[in-house]
Amino acid sequence: MYPILQKVDSPADIKKLAIDELNLLAVDIREALFNRLTKIGGHCGPNFGSVEAEIALHFVFNSPQDKFVFDVSHQSYAHKMITGRKLGYIDDSKFQEDSGYTNPEESEHDLFNVGHTSTSISLATGLAKARDLAHKKENVIAFIGDGSLSGGEALEALNYAGSELNSNFIIIVNDNEMCIAENHGGIYKNLKELRDSRGKCEKNFFKALGFDYYYEENGNDIASLIKIFSRVKDVNHPVVVHIHTLKGKGYKPAETDKEAWHWCAPFDRETGKSTVDWGNGESYESLTTNYLLEKAKQDPKLLVITPAMPASVGLYPEARKSLGSQYTDVGIAEEQAIAMASGAAKYGAKPVVVTNATFLQRSYDQMAQDTAINNNAIAVILNYSGFQILRDVTHLGIFINSIYSNIPNVRVLAPTNKAEYLAMISYAIDQNDHPTIVLMPGNGVIDDGRMADKNYSEVKFKTEIAGEKVALIALGDFYQLGENFVQEIQKKLGFTPTLINPRFASDIDTETLDKLKENHKLVITLEDGIVEGGFGVKVANYLSDSDLKVKVLGFEKKFFDRYNPDEFLKDQGITAENILELCSKI
Amino acid sequence: MYPILQKVDSPADIKKLAIDELNLLAVDIREALFNRLTKIGGHCGPNFGSVEAEIALHFVFNSPQDKFVFDVSHQSYAHKMITGRKLGYIDDSKFQEDSGYTNPEESEHDLFNVGHTSTSISLATGLAKARDLAHKKENVIAFIGDGSLSGGEALEALNYAGSELNSNFIIIVNDNEMCIAENHGGIYKNLKELRDSRGKCEKNFFKALGFDYYYEENGNDIASLIKIFSRVKDVNHPVVVHIHTLKGKGYKPAETDKEAWHWCAPFDRETGKSTVDWGNGESYESLTTNYLLEKAKQDPKLLVITPAMPASVGLYPEARKSLGSQYTDVGIAEEQAIAMASGAAKYGAKPVVVTNATFLQRSYDQMAQDTAINNNAIAVILNYSGFQILRDVTHLGIFINSIYSNIPNVRVLAPTNKAEYLAMISYAIDQNDHPTIVLMPGNGVIDDGRMADKNYSEVKFKTEIAGEKVALIALGDFYQLGENFVQEIQKKLGFTPTLINPRFASDIDTETLDKLKENHKLVITLEDGIVEGGFGVKVANYLSDSDLKVKVLGFEKKFFDRYNPDEFLKDQGITAENILELCSKI
Repeated sequence: MYPILQKVDSPADIKKLAIDELNLLAVDIREALFNRLTKIGGHCGPNFGSVEAEIALHFVFNSPQDKFVFDVSHQSYAHKMITGRKLGYIDDSKFQEDSGYTNPEESEHDLFNVGHTSTSISLATGLAKARDLAHKKENVIAFIGDGSLSGGEALEALNYAGSELNSNFIIIVNDNEMCIAENHGGIYKNLKELRDSRGKCEKNFFKALGFDYYYEENGNDIASLIKIFSRVKDVNHPVVVHIHTLKGKGYKPAETDKEAWHWCAPFDRETGKSTVDWGNGESYESLTTNYLLEKAKQDPKLLVITPAMPASVGLYPEARKSLGSQYTDVGIAEEQAIAMASGAAKYGAKPVVVTNATFLQRSYDQMAQDTAINNNAIAVILNYSGFQILRDVTHLGIFINSIYSNIPNVRVLAPTNKAEYLAMISYAIDQNDHPTIVLMPGNGVIDDGRMADKNYSEVKFKTEIAGEKVALIALGDFYQLGENFVQEIQKKLGFTPTLINPRFASDIDTETLDKLKENHKLVITLEDGIVEGGFGVKVANYLSDSDLKVKVLGFEKKFFDRYNPDEFLKDQGITAENILELCSKI
Repeated sequence: MYPILQKVDSPADIKKLAIDELNLLAVDIREALFNRLTKIGGHCGPNFGSVEAEIALHFVFNSPQDKFVFDVSHQSYAHKMITGRKLGYIDDSKFQEDSGYTNPEESEHDLFNVGHTSTSISLATGLAKARDLAHKKENVIAFIGDGSLSGGEALEALNYAGSELNSNFIIIVNDNEMCIAENHGGIYKNLKELRDSRGKCEKNFFKALGFDYYYEENGNDIASLIKIFSRVKDVNHPVVVHIHTLKGKGYKPAETDKEAWHWCAPFDRETGKSTVDWGNGESYESLTTNYLLEKAKQDPKLLVITPAMPASVGLYPEARKSLGSQYTDVGIAEEQAIAMASGAAKYGAKPVVVTNATFLQRSYDQMAQDTAINNNAIAVILNYSGFQILRDVTHLGIFINSIYSNIPNVRVLAPTNKAEYLAMISYAIDQNDHPTIVLMPGNGVIDDGRMADKNYSEVKFKTEIAGEKVALIALGDFYQLGENFVQEIQKKLGFTPTLINPRFASDIDTETLDKLKENHKLVITLEDGIVEGGFGVKVANYLSDSDLKVKVLGFEKKFFDRYNPDEFLKDQGITAENILELCSKI
């Protein structure tokens, strides 16, 4: 197995190979991709499509003296195999040693932990400028594709690099005709014009910004790539090399349905079917899609906006088609998504932005300035907040509340079951009160019969169990933990504590908190996010000069990486034992 | 005075005027600008340069049915005069009624409170999309200039609008050849090529993104502008109208030194000299510049990066020239500034980003992902944090700590006097510990003889006065308030409280806090920012299950606008009376 790859331990090893052998290395790398991806999943199409490019890069350039920065780095698997980490792909016992993104702790060939899009060019300008200051001459290469060009950071960096760097700077635009879903935006239309004219058409986005420009149609042909990379090696000015590749290259299902195979769960290579049992129950994603489709039919004012991740929130191609002009994908461009929503709300539409928690943080200023200062009542539905689902250091959802709950006028709603989720998204879309974020639960659809209020204009906590001595205020995804802890306290300590569903992550209900002073000694807050800047500290602060003691439970302010969810809760002290100990001390 | 302007109460009034009269109206508007700007200051060059364009816009289009969105809206004074607000310019007693930015509370002709750059196109796409959903046909017009095109939000919006809107959408690019300082970036070089070729050169950034494109050389000629705006009125697709204007037009000093006159303090029209007595003592801006210039000479690794606001932090043209290749201005592009700094730090340079607090919030994701996850030890020096200096709702510095103190690995340092400020910026630039933000004090240079530590690797609060009963923890700019309160307590209550200079806004020193439990009953924290998500709640949270009570003093989570600083502190309860009352209750 992997006859050529077996012989490759570092980039030096591939520089000795002839083109034939490099082509065979590509075969080996694809086999290794199959081995890992069929068994543990990961980014699929982007990696299959860029095997040849990464071989050619390492053949032509000299990493780590020459610096590669892979955008998102979700397509860097071939690079990782070439730079000493092939066991993470061919040895099943070593899968966990490889992070799935570039990671400086793994190798000197990786310069940055990267996971968000559109950062490579900007990071690379820093390397290039520092290199110039040090009077060095290494090549600096940013490798960017999969729709990442439309993100504000990438565009700011293109504007800068095209005119302010007068030294070696190479951007490889890996054009596989796709974003995560289909591409949206003028840049991508221009890429098509450039592909159609083999790089020769008059309209050229990159030249307009001051770049020298090269086009390579055969972006999956190692010999062609070596030729063009050799031409730009050691150039003394900023250059864009636009290569046309096939996303998913080498695996028919991935070549055919590029969106579905951008990322994959473990699958059967023969059939292309996922080997994970997803059950056939409902999910919050499907509930969301169904709600939006129904709402769109009834209300012509509804406008669904996604920044390039529609399927991750349940909006598969059919749903998008059904929404028609009531749907728009702005591409990877969270700033545009939020500010556009604010503009639409001002006109009287009912915009709802649906995306992932970790990416919304790119639009802090748009939420604060464009939206919240104007108090335009946009709705935002966020998937993957909390600690459960995305556990890579670059994709954590545990910061979202520390960011957005501290912006004036912004409401963050944290539902605790299906009825409440549906009521909250319905309220968020129809209201005229505030910009309102609803956190899609991450702990499975819970249909426990608890009814939900329809209106969330006023900040009111909901006391679900009126008890004594201790009050548990259990936010959103941690509400069920709160229920468990109540039972433990009843069983082990013989009293019934109060259980509160606060519903609002961004605000406190002082009336409810004041009442607790009557017959409680301790308040414990529980939240699925970091403590600092979060919900519980608002409670602690309000009660800090009273006799009521408060213990805020949540997570440390830290970048966690690839943890086991159960162990994580234990490490963070969110256990029945800890709660019982706190309660027994009062 | 103002013979034509006196007759204008709404846009309808100018539609009856002949070209001659419109030209006279421009004269009146400039006189009105002089009246306001010489007396209370404000944005100067941008307003003088866009008088004709705004007259022509209101002549051709029908606001408020047609929608104008002014970028930054610092150049909207002519628009404001035309839309019923001339008294804010010609009647000295009414100056305060006009906000200096667009403001929906003032007029239906203003759609958004705007003050940050690069938002107009994005907000306008929302208006346009909502208009299309409502099957309406009004014109939507974004008016953008002064370097705002290079901001990520504007670029994301251009990418979207150029291809995804198939309906009326008009962008006026008000090209006055300037940013705030000189322009930087490929877009601006392209604007020059377009100007030089009268819009005809092959390289065209806007066409590459899918826009129809028009050029007008005479951007200060009303007749020419009316002609070109009439051509694009009611177009059924996205179009860019590139107009060439003269920044500062009509006032020689402003036409000559465009950077200095972008914004002005009250001035004498005859001499162009500021009528404000600035004193001739040192400022934190000049201390910063002097430090950086000296450091650059000694250390070739220093790299100073500004996102387009160099003078606002003391980096005037001469200082920039002196820094040479150790200085780079990335244009209005905070995302690029921070990510580039991270890249440069990775290479081994010593990057320092110097800008204003309110604008850094555009780079949350770059600070978190590009920088903090990688723990690249960049330095950031921020001017205008806190409540004192910038008091427009769109430019408040009081949120900075609630944003950045909750990102793992990021250190926020809050100096309390000159020695500490210089020690902290020196540490921040030379260290390899963490991304480190230093908040430039906003309360004047205080040289009180207190010495500063050189190293801030470890989080340690500094106990300046060891007292009893009450501990005041007074952060940064509020340290001197803390000193005053100590004296009041001594005088009125007869004991000496402890006074702590925490120095770190992002972290707490638990050892110092634990020691307070021995002989203190109350901790009062003081900070120059909003309470929620800030410094004091970290203290309150840490002590929330102890017997030590905590009172966190700072500001409400609210967008304040144009307040009187002294009244503001009273309103927010930050007074000696309040402190004495809190202390007398223990």
